[in-house]
Amino acid sequence: MKIQLALDFLKFKDALKIAKQVKDYIDWIEAGTPLIKSEGIEVVRKLKRKFPKKKIVADLKTMDVGALEAELAIKAGADLVTVLGAADNKTIKDAILVARKNKKKCVVDLINTDPTRWKEIEKLKPDYLGIHVGIDQQLRGVNPLEQLKKLRTKSKIVVAGGINKEKIKELVRRNVDVAIIGGAITRSKNPKKAAKEIREELENL
Amino acid sequence: MKIQLALDFLKFKDALKIAKQVKDYIDWIEAGTPLIKSEGIEVVRKLKRKFPKKKIVADLKTMDVGALEAELAIKAGADLVTVLGAADNKTIKDAILVARKNKKKCVVDLINTDPTRWKEIEKLKPDYLGIHVGIDQQLRGVNPLEQLKKLRTKSKIVVAGGINKEKIKELVRRNVDVAIIGGAITRSKNPKKAAKEIREELENL
Repeated sequence: MKIQLALDFLKFKDALKIAKQVKDYIDWIEAGTPLIKSEGIEVVRKLKRKFPKKKIVADLKTMDVGALEAELAIKAGADLVTVLGAADNKTIKDAILVARKNKKKCVVDLINTDPTRWKEIEKLKPDYLGIHVGIDQQLRGVNPLEQLKKLRTKSKIVVAGGINKEKIKELVRRNVDVAIIGGAITRSKNPKKAAKEIREELENL
Repeated sequence: MKIQLALDFLKFKDALKIAKQVKDYIDWIEAGTPLIKSEGIEVVRKLKRKFPKKKIVADLKTMDVGALEAELAIKAGADLVTVLGAADNKTIKDAILVARKNKKKCVVDLINTDPTRWKEIEKLKPDYLGIHVGIDQQLRGVNPLEQLKKLRTKSKIVVAGGINKEKIKELVRRNVDVAIIGGAITRSKNPKKAAKEIREELENL
């Protein structure tokens, strides 16, 4: 299982500071949606330049113009782009197609969609399906592991939403491909230690 | 009825060029989602500076962290922010609340949601509800006027999706508050003429 660091900051310099501290313990780096909206797609370009060996995920959460937004991010250096499962099928298809043409990957973010919708999205054959409990939903106690149990897919699986060290074992047991970790690292008093402990937990399984 | 110019460009300079040409014929100016993702929230700040008398709409299409994104845009000078109807109720509520606290407005964008969901959103008492057929959906022939017929609300109504001069009369007849116009102006060979004709159509009703 890979560890994706979600950089949900508004300032690139804050994001970069954390990324530098924890880079040895994570696999992929995500430019979070608020960071992209705050400073623009340039943040993806800068992350790729600073961390050329890491996969960079542009968390676009695209809701329309799937081709246009995927292209924008891929041109800036993104290895993976995200599109919303709540979007029109054409938007999702276009994002998948643009990623494929560029030998990059597309993650369909299932945030706030239900298992009936997941079956429709499955037919679009995305590279990755993302179980995702949003930050606003986490505050209400929604648990991504409960959603994960309901997902049947041939796509690779990404899970996000309050993931911490304690949940790593369960994610591995359920064949999750990528665990997205934000707050458990970025809001830790000691991000480097937090990331190291998560990596060790994973390697000791 | 007000006319909102949707600037769905990737480069601010292209957006600004059109906005300058047509400013006398439109009421509100929207920083489109791809423009914000491309160049960051700074585009809102620049639009407000260039057009201080116009309302500036930040088309964030927020799917999570409703408070954070609304604040980001309002701090940059946005008079209105958008949040997705497909988002969690808490995300929508937070965006509405932040707008209200700052004496700004929030538009809930109903793109790719159904009338059952609209009823739930109505209970959150948004300032504006946005009937919106996305660009990817327009290519399939989905018509916002058909959706408009199904909407029952006490909120003000915004309509977007392939709106052109020919549709103005019907929007006025249905008590729409804001008509969002993108391509009919921005992709016209003569944007100024196109905007002028739309304004005249509206004024001659």
